[in-house]
Amino acid sequence: MHCKNDSDITMEETETLYRLANNHISVDCVVVGFDGEGLCVLLVKRDGIDDSGEFHGMKLPGSLIYEDEDLDQAAARVLFELTGLKNVNLMQFKTFGSKNRTKDPRDVLWLERAQGAHVERIVTVGYVALVKIDRTNEKQLVNSSAFWTPVSEIGDLAFDHNLIVAEALSNLRGVTDMNPSVLFELLPRKFTATQFRSLYEILLNHRVDARNFHKKIALMDYVVPLEERQQGVAHRAARYYKFDRKKYNRSRH
Amino acid sequence: MHCKNDSDITMEETETLYRLANNHISVDCVVVGFDGEGLCVLLVKRDGIDDSGEFHGMKLPGSLIYEDEDLDQAAARVLFELTGLKNVNLMQFKTFGSKNRTKDPRDVLWLERAQGAHVERIVTVGYVALVKIDRTNEKQLVNSSAFWTPVSEIGDLAFDHNLIVAEALSNLRGVTDMNPSVLFELLPRKFTATQFRSLYEILLNHRVDARNFHKKIALMDYVVPLEERQQGVAHRAARYYKFDRKKYNRSRH
Repeated sequence: MHCKNDSDITMEETETLYRLANNHISVDCVVVGFDGEGLCVLLVKRDGIDDSGEFHGMKLPGSLIYEDEDLDQAAARVLFELTGLKNVNLMQFKTFGSKNRTKDPRDVLWLERAQGAHVERIVTVGYVALVKIDRTNEKQLVNSSAFWTPVSEIGDLAFDHNLIVAEALSNLRGVTDMNPSVLFELLPRKFTATQFRSLYEILLNHRVDARNFHKKIALMDYVVPLEERQQGVAHRAARYYKFDRKKYNRSRH
Repeated sequence: MHCKNDSDITMEETETLYRLANNHISVDCVVVGFDGEGLCVLLVKRDGIDDSGEFHGMKLPGSLIYEDEDLDQAAARVLFELTGLKNVNLMQFKTFGSKNRTKDPRDVLWLERAQGAHVERIVTVGYVALVKIDRTNEKQLVNSSAFWTPVSEIGDLAFDHNLIVAEALSNLRGVTDMNPSVLFELLPRKFTATQFRSLYEILLNHRVDARNFHKKIALMDYVVPLEERQQGVAHRAARYYKFDRKKYNRSRH
């Protein structure tokens, strides 16, 4: 692996340096994907070199902001540059500014080389998004070094990125609780109560009693039972439901 | 009014400069107070001088962060230094980083003089708190230049502070909706349904039908009716209620 030293910095990189707002403010994106079975987080590879040799690791897609962009724009730009993902509904959820964020010398070394700039205290603005992993975003990701990692398999990440992921998931739980409509974007257009319940359990990270969940659905007038039932099932074919956004919006006001 | 120029900077100020993390990251505190009738926001005076002479204005209590403090610590420190308020439950709610935040030259001029540092892009981390205006905090405020301003009487504030106040109030509405227990900290220990309803109306910023609100209360098993009724009222003395935090916490899980 080749790590550039100062004299290797190209014109393009100088221009990038020039465009940085400063080296104290970054954005980090936690894109949570649902693959039909579980939750994954989009991570990028981070390779570096220190006194003990090369090191490899993973981190969230994130970077310093540019002078000519707002925070939301920076988050969308950084996510696209590092992963290829476009049109993701990123929401700012929390800013991380502990003075210990940059306590690991490897993190600082890596960042200074990547940015060609001296790094001190960095405050990072965290963004979160929940998406369905589908053919469209798989295609966008194909030429990047980003990949989906199941939440349970996330190892040690750079900086405080493990904390950022944990807080993003907890934020998503709060959002789901308050605004269950986010769930329906992850489900097929027609879904069974069981599909709905497993997604709910996965997002909220706790088991829900099936009978109670049926009662819960019955109270949601925006979850509409269809006449249609599952095909190709021997017996007790499950009924399909659909989400009615108009009814949902009315129920919120 | 006397405005310092560079040569006036004292040893103490140099020391402060030295302790700043950098001149790009600040915190701003929106302390919302309930005085029994309405909502107020705690503002501080901001005086400056430009080509057209002295100017006076108001702003949120906020300032750049120090190198040796985390964001939450910075918010508590800044609030105390500028207002005298202590032990306020400040919650981070949103970070503001538009590149247009410092577009008014008066704001930049004022800040550069106040901080003795060159100012470019500043990202500010917004904190919000909801408190009851009482003798304790009135006493803490007495030696500061901070004062409560009714929400409806807030004029043009420095930087994007009007936006920060609006977003803080909207955040409080969301929090109240999700977690009504914050309301009970603002009410007397024993309160009538009317007191509860007016506070709810004030915070949510819309009228609530009295009969529907009684039904709502009946569904809150943590709002416990007492035997006691209002004293000194000719007829239809209202019943008192109290908030049962234990029942509330149970109802949330």
